[in-house]
Amino acid sequence: MALIVQKYGGTSVGSVERIQSVSERIISTLQQGHDVVVAVSAMAGETNRLLHLANQISEVPEPRELDMLLSAGEQVSIALLAMSLNQKGIKAISLTADQAGIHTNNSFNDATIKHIETDLITQWVDKGYVVIVAGFQGRDDQGNITTLGRGGSDTTAVALAAALDADECQIFTDVDGVYTSDPRFVSNTRRLEEVSFSDMHALAKSGAKVLQEHSVAHAWNSSVALRVLSSFEDGEGTLICENPKQPLAVTGLALKQDLSLVECENISSEEQAELYKQYRVLNERCDCFQIVVPKATFLQLKLAFDTKIRNISSLSILTLVGDNVEGMAESACNQLLANDIDVHQYDIEPKSVSVIVNQADLHRAAEILHKTFVITEQSQDNDLLVAVS
Amino acid sequence: MALIVQKYGGTSVGSVERIQSVSERIISTLQQGHDVVVAVSAMAGETNRLLHLANQISEVPEPRELDMLLSAGEQVSIALLAMSLNQKGIKAISLTADQAGIHTNNSFNDATIKHIETDLITQWVDKGYVVIVAGFQGRDDQGNITTLGRGGSDTTAVALAAALDADECQIFTDVDGVYTSDPRFVSNTRRLEEVSFSDMHALAKSGAKVLQEHSVAHAWNSSVALRVLSSFEDGEGTLICENPKQPLAVTGLALKQDLSLVECENISSEEQAELYKQYRVLNERCDCFQIVVPKATFLQLKLAFDTKIRNISSLSILTLVGDNVEGMAESACNQLLANDIDVHQYDIEPKSVSVIVNQADLHRAAEILHKTFVITEQSQDNDLLVAVS
Repeated sequence: MALIVQKYGGTSVGSVERIQSVSERIISTLQQGHDVVVAVSAMAGETNRLLHLANQISEVPEPRELDMLLSAGEQVSIALLAMSLNQKGIKAISLTADQAGIHTNNSFNDATIKHIETDLITQWVDKGYVVIVAGFQGRDDQGNITTLGRGGSDTTAVALAAALDADECQIFTDVDGVYTSDPRFVSNTRRLEEVSFSDMHALAKSGAKVLQEHSVAHAWNSSVALRVLSSFEDGEGTLICENPKQPLAVTGLALKQDLSLVECENISSEEQAELYKQYRVLNERCDCFQIVVPKATFLQLKLAFDTKIRNISSLSILTLVGDNVEGMAESACNQLLANDIDVHQYDIEPKSVSVIVNQADLHRAAEILHKTFVITEQSQDNDLLVAVS
Repeated sequence: MALIVQKYGGTSVGSVERIQSVSERIISTLQQGHDVVVAVSAMAGETNRLLHLANQISEVPEPRELDMLLSAGEQVSIALLAMSLNQKGIKAISLTADQAGIHTNNSFNDATIKHIETDLITQWVDKGYVVIVAGFQGRDDQGNITTLGRGGSDTTAVALAAALDADECQIFTDVDGVYTSDPRFVSNTRRLEEVSFSDMHALAKSGAKVLQEHSVAHAWNSSVALRVLSSFEDGEGTLICENPKQPLAVTGLALKQDLSLVECENISSEEQAELYKQYRVLNERCDCFQIVVPKATFLQLKLAFDTKIRNISSLSILTLVGDNVEGMAESACNQLLANDIDVHQYDIEPKSVSVIVNQADLHRAAEILHKTFVITEQSQDNDLLVAVS
């Protein structure tokens, strides 16, 4: 008997039918003898619907009021999920983040969880209830409703698992685990059975969307074992833990798209220092330098710097992650060059190697690196294991 | 300078455009030098949308979870209204009923306000903020979200006005005041400038929909002057207070439709006593009697009593309300009989006279009673006042 925290995202609770099947998944976990605490996102589309209402009133809604508005989304989904379990004869109770004792700082729209008073949750679990907590939200010290920023339900789930000392935090999503690369974009990707916290953190940081970077960091810090599972089909998913049983030389290839190469001219040295601190610098000469920024960030910078900056081209970053990738940087660049793909820069960090290419080359570059380094290396790992065992 | 509590119903905040015009109304009240606290309903259609989701899951959703669900509706409207005021440069803050300190008992779906801790509201008002409170909801002693039942935003507004010792509680709705009868149904109705608490209470109890019976009772008990106003056009509306300047012999005609005449047979004497206590008895002989119940109630009774009860016909009740109506009962019946309208029963209470007719006769009966008693008597009142002045 274990305590499991489960998180269901917006797509998983996107309709009454899906809410019903989520409650079936919860029931099957109960039937294995476990206690279950659930963190739930707003129904898919609901957050956008509410944002659209807000933006009809103001382009930049007051942050506190935006959190009041958006937090209504999870209130709907937690109530419906509790009703669905009740209707199937299961004791279940929904709690807003305030009721669940989730305390955050007061950075509206992007709050950080400070601590969770778990007394009430624990009381209900002890009475045999499934406790369903609104994800993505919290309350500050003044009792204002805050939100953790988009995708924050993962953070809620991890924080709950840590605070409750849960045995596992299961993230249910629309894919059945963590893949060697984005399966919608790269061919022959493979689901990973286990990934270390450090590799998962590097993958998330480098653009893998299956888990948020902060949630992984939080789980890692708190030693909460994470499991990524599909809401729609059965399976073992991917376990993210400290020490995978089968460590891999190369774990995966993460992709980060929609970056702008931005040229800056006549920028004051203070401002330049500030930009250098935040962004990757690609080229520099005299009073002109180039930085790599997300496309959305470029628009913000444009407002601040006007004609002093301009977008030169669209870039992507590909990052190989794994224990032994550091020595592969040169070979990776050569492979790409041999296929007529320009590499603007490469970067070696502990356990990761990244290359910057033109956005137009991303797809081909991803196929080449995934095939050459991920698949090949993992096959060798497996051969090795077979040989050893 | 006064403290005004305003209540805006679902139609008044039914779209972004309407929310914008509500904020204009609030601003014009501020410009008169008043402080404003606002109680708001969910956007029109939202409560039904949420109920529909719940009913897809369960015909009888768990009451606590239903309140969790429905209360999300007002959370959306208060946030949008606060944003709208902020965007127009007005300091405004939205508060859930929990944050606003509205304590209720724990009768989910039909809770009663016990008391309001007004500290936080008062703090914000003192700082010059418009405080926007979620109507229709509260919290019980355990911190669960409760709702006051449909239309409960009026109750919220009156309770806030009483707790804050406000100078006036303004109920903004889709009509521009209280009329001598339902203007959508009866011709030549007239807006009343002032109505006494006791008359308004009798009208609401007898089917007038403009204000809830309980809200009027609450305002009466707390001596909170109520004013019914239109959200859509300017005007003085109708003031409901202890002592109208211009008391009327006949104030109005209230209509209650959709009643069933139910015949009961072979019912135990205990059950009969119970039914007699709750409903109006029309005819009785030996082991058979007839009661008048709302159509919805008939369906519930049918589940309990099965073949022992049956629906005989549809009835309506018309009620004349005013200081001097008690002597008009016989004349009213005669007028109806002279027009071939059957009167099943008439009833005289202090300040009200009601007659029961067949539903099919309701429209004609309403026109006759309104023309003969309300319009004629009120003209005489006015003549008298002119003669005196």
